Amino acid sequence: MKPTQDIDAILRQAQSGFEQYRLLPVSERLAFLHAVADGLEAGCATLAQIADSETSLGIPRLRGELTRTCHQLRSYADAVRSGYAIEAKINHADPNRTPPKPDLRKMNVPIGPVVVFGASNFPLAYSTAGGDTASALAAGCSVVVKAHPAHPQTCDAVAAIILKAACDTGMPAGVFAQVHGADHATGAALVQHPYTQAVGFTGSFSGGKALFDLAQSRPVPIPVFAEMGSVNPVYLFPEKLQAEPENIGKMLAASITLGMGQFCTNPGIMVGIESEALGRFVEVLSEFIASVSSAPMLHAGIATSYRSHLDRALQQPGVKLQGQSGTPSDDLQAIPSILSVSALDFINNPVLHQEVFGPFSLLVLCSDFEQMKQVAKILKGQLTSSVMAFPDECGAHSSLLQTIQDGCGRLVFNGVPTGVEVTLAQHHGGPFPATTDSRFTAVGADAIRRFMRPVAFQNCPAALLPPELQDENPLHIPRWVDDNFV
Amino acid sequence: MKPTQDIDAILRQAQSGFEQYRLLPVSERLAFLHAVADGLEAGCATLAQIADSETSLGIPRLRGELTRTCHQLRSYADAVRSGYAIEAKINHADPNRTPPKPDLRKMNVPIGPVVVFGASNFPLAYSTAGGDTASALAAGCSVVVKAHPAHPQTCDAVAAIILKAACDTGMPAGVFAQVHGADHATGAALVQHPYTQAVGFTGSFSGGKALFDLAQSRPVPIPVFAEMGSVNPVYLFPEKLQAEPENIGKMLAASITLGMGQFCTNPGIMVGIESEALGRFVEVLSEFIASVSSAPMLHAGIATSYRSHLDRALQQPGVKLQGQSGTPSDDLQAIPSILSVSALDFINNPVLHQEVFGPFSLLVLCSDFEQMKQVAKILKGQLTSSVMAFPDECGAHSSLLQTIQDGCGRLVFNGVPTGVEVTLAQHHGGPFPATTDSRFTAVGADAIRRFMRPVAFQNCPAALLPPELQDENPLHIPRWVDDNFV
Repeated sequence: MKPTQDIDAILRQAQSGFEQYRLLPVSERLAFLHAVADGLEAGCATLAQIADSETSLGIPRLRGELTRTCHQLRSYADAVRSGYAIEAKINHADPNRTPPKPDLRKMNVPIGPVVVFGASNFPLAYSTAGGDTASALAAGCSVVVKAHPAHPQTCDAVAAIILKAACDTGMPAGVFAQVHGADHATGAALVQHPYTQAVGFTGSFSGGKALFDLAQSRPVPIPVFAEMGSVNPVYLFPEKLQAEPENIGKMLAASITLGMGQFCTNPGIMVGIESEALGRFVEVLSEFIASVSSAPMLHAGIATSYRSHLDRALQQPGVKLQGQSGTPSDDLQAIPSILSVSALDFINNPVLHQEVFGPFSLLVLCSDFEQMKQVAKILKGQLTSSVMAFPDECGAHSSLLQTIQDGCGRLVFNGVPTGVEVTLAQHHGGPFPATTDSRFTAVGADAIRRFMRPVAFQNCPAALLPPELQDENPLHIPRWVDDNFV
Repeated sequence: MKPTQDIDAILRQAQSGFEQYRLLPVSERLAFLHAVADGLEAGCATLAQIADSETSLGIPRLRGELTRTCHQLRSYADAVRSGYAIEAKINHADPNRTPPKPDLRKMNVPIGPVVVFGASNFPLAYSTAGGDTASALAAGCSVVVKAHPAHPQTCDAVAAIILKAACDTGMPAGVFAQVHGADHATGAALVQHPYTQAVGFTGSFSGGKALFDLAQSRPVPIPVFAEMGSVNPVYLFPEKLQAEPENIGKMLAASITLGMGQFCTNPGIMVGIESEALGRFVEVLSEFIASVSSAPMLHAGIATSYRSHLDRALQQPGVKLQGQSGTPSDDLQAIPSILSVSALDFINNPVLHQEVFGPFSLLVLCSDFEQMKQVAKILKGQLTSSVMAFPDECGAHSSLLQTIQDGCGRLVFNGVPTGVEVTLAQHHGGPFPATTDSRFTAVGADAIRRFMRPVAFQNCPAALLPPELQDENPLHIPRWVDDNFV
C-alpha cells in the first residue's frame, strides 16, 4: 500500500530546510524555539480544550503538560546556547614532536532531517512540539512529524503554531513539517526515505520494534530512538515496609492511578516479601484503589486493550484480584486494579511480565530476598526501577541492588517512578526492550545528543573554523582544550 | 556449522568476570591496564619479531605500532581516572518547588562483556590489546577477543601478556579471554550470545555489515561499532595545487604507499580540476610511485585481492594508468599504482567508488568546481576527507566544503589522511558505510564511551551513592553540578 501523501516531496523540502537551518547563527535557531514556546503559551486555553476533546486527559493536566512542553523547548535551546550539547574539544598542534602532532578540533554537528512519531498519552509534551521535536530542532536538524491519529486536531493546532513561529523568526521553508496517515505505509515511507537521518518514537513495543527493524534494514541504516514498553518494577524491602506500610501504600496507589495509569513510567509490577507489613500495605493499597473514581482513557482502542489485558492477567494461574474500583459508567473508562501472584507463578509465566497499559499493578509475593533477586533477574530492560528501602537494607543486599540497577535507566529510591523531571541529570532510556538505545535519553538536555554526530577538523585554517572551535571562543562555551576543561 | 569452542562457557566466564571487575576501585582497573602496557613494552622485541613473521610489516613499523598500543592503554586508563569518560551530572533537589524537585545524579556505567574482532592491518594497535580492547577494559567491561586468523601467534603472545598482567594485578577470572576460529560460526556465536553487550570490529564492509545485521536481529539488539571501508577522498583545489604541485604530489605519494597502502585512511581517491598544475602534480606523483620499491602485503589473500581489484579498475571505461612501480619479485608483493578517470566516467560507475585496499589511488578529473561537487555528493560516507586549498578558495566554495564535511568524520586541511592521532579531539568514525555508527570514535579517549551507558539515581541515600556522584567528590573528577561545570 502506498502512502497517500508525497513523502518524497516532504523529505526533499526537509533536506533543503536542514541545509539552510543549520547554517543560521545559534541565536536565530534559539529565537525560533523560544517563539514556538511563546506561541504555545499564548494558545494555551484553546490547545488544552482541543487536546481534552481528543484525549479526555482533562484541562488541568493538559495545561500542566503545556508548561512542560514550553520548558523543554526553552531549556533545550538554552543547553545549545550554553554550548553544553556541542562538546567542543581542542588539541593544539605540536610541530616539535616526531612525527609532528596535528591540530585537532572536534564538535557535534546536526545529522539531518529527523522523523518524529509522537505519543498518544502526551498529546503536547511528547507529540508534535514535544521532546523529540524540541531536541532535534535544538540540535539544528529539520523535523518531519508523523501526526498521532488519536489526536489529529491537537497535532494540527500545534503544527500551525510552530509554522507561524518559523515564519515570524525567518526560518527556512522545510525546517518543520507534519504529515497525517494512520496507515503503516506513511510511517514506513518516512523511515525509509534516504534523506531521513534519525527517528524518534514513543509508543508500543510492536510499533517501535517494527520501525527499528525497518531502519536497520535500509541500505544506509539510521538510529531509531524508540521509547517502548516498561513495567517499572517497585521493590519493597521488608524493614522499610514494616516502618511505613500506609505511606508506601498511598504513594503507590496514587502513582498507579495517576492519569488513569497512562504513563510510560507507571509502576506495573511491585515485588514484596510476604510479611504482616506487606498484608497491611496491600490493605491500604486496595482501600485506596477502591475509592478511586474511574475516568475515561485516551481513546476506545486503549480502553479495550486495557480490559482484555486485565482479563488475560486475571486468568493466569495463581493470579488473585486484590483490589479494584467500582464498575465504570461507560466503555471508555478503565477499572483501576491491583492483582497479586506468587513469585514462582510469576517467574514461570512470561505473560505476567508484560506491560498492561493503564491503572494496573501486579504484586509479586516472594518468600525471601533470594526469590526477589530471581524476579529482578527475569524482568527485561526497564525505563525505571524503584526501591523502597532503608540504606542499611540496601547495603546488606548490594548484589540484589546491582541486579535491579542493571535492568533500568533510572533507579528511584523511596519514591515512585511517575514524574520524569526535565533536567540535565535525567536519564529516560532503559535497556532493551524499554528503549532501542539505552545510551541516550529522551528527556533532559542530553536528548539533543541523539541528533548530532561529531566531526573533527585537522589543521583547519583559523578563518575557516566554526565559532565553537575558534581559539578566541567567541560564543563563550565550555570546552576541553588540551585535555583540560576551560 | 557449529563453532569448535565452547563459546557459551567463555561468555559465562566473561559475564562473571565483568560482574567482579566493574566493582573494583578505578585505581585497580587502571593498574591492570598499565601492567598490560608495561608487559607489552617488556616483550617488544619478541612481539615485533612474531608479528613481522606473520604480517611482513617490518620491525620498525611494528615497534612504532607497539608504542601506539601502549599509549592507548595508558591514555584511556588516564581518561577514566580523570573522570572524563564518566560524564557525572548532579541536579540537587528543591523540596520547596511545586511539585518538589527530586535529587537526580547520573553517570556512565560499563555495559557488560564486549566482543572484539581485531584488524589484520594492525596486529598490535587494533588487535588483541588494541584500541577496542583498551577502551572496553577502561570502561569497566570484560573483553572476549576473536583472534585474527592472519596473525594467530601474535594474538596468542599478546593475550598471554594481558592474562599475566590480569593475574599480577589480581583481576577476576574472565576479565579477558581470546578465542580462535577462522570459520564464521565462531564469530556469529560470539555476537549472538545473550551475555555479549557490544561488538567492536575493524575490517571489511562485508564482514562488518554481516556482524551488524546479526546483532540487530538478536532478540535483544546490541550496538556494533564496525570500522569498515573508506576511500578517504582528497580534493585538490586549483590555486593551492598551482602553488605547490610538487609538494602536494610528494606528500600524497608517500601517503598512498605508506605501509603498502594498508591503512583504513589510505587516500584511495583524489579529485582535481584539469589544469597545467594538475598535470605537473600527476608527473611528480607518477615519478615518485615508479621509484617506490614493492614490498610484501599482509598475507597472500590481501595481495591476491589487491591484484584483482586493480585489474578490475583498469578495465573500467575511461580509466587510464598514470603511474606504477616496477614488477614485483613475488606474488605477495603489491604494485603501487595511480590511475585516472574523467569525472563523468567516475560518477556513472559505482565500481570505481569502492575501496581498493592497497597502494592505490584513482585521480578523478573534473572540468570545474561544479563537477567536483557532484563527485563529492556521490561518494558515500568516509572516515576522512582531505582538502588541499588556500583558505580563500575554501571560503569561495563553502557549499562544496559543506558537502565534503557531510560525508566524513574527520576533515583534513592541507595534509594527508594517514596518521590518526590518539587524542581527545580525534574522531575516527565516519558516516555509513565507513562505520556502522558515526556518533562514536574508535580512536582517542572518547572511544571509551562506546562501551558505557548512563544510569540516573533519584533521591539516592548518600551512603549508597557511588563515589563519582557523592557530594564530597572524593575522586576529584569534573562534574556538571546544577547545570554548571565544576
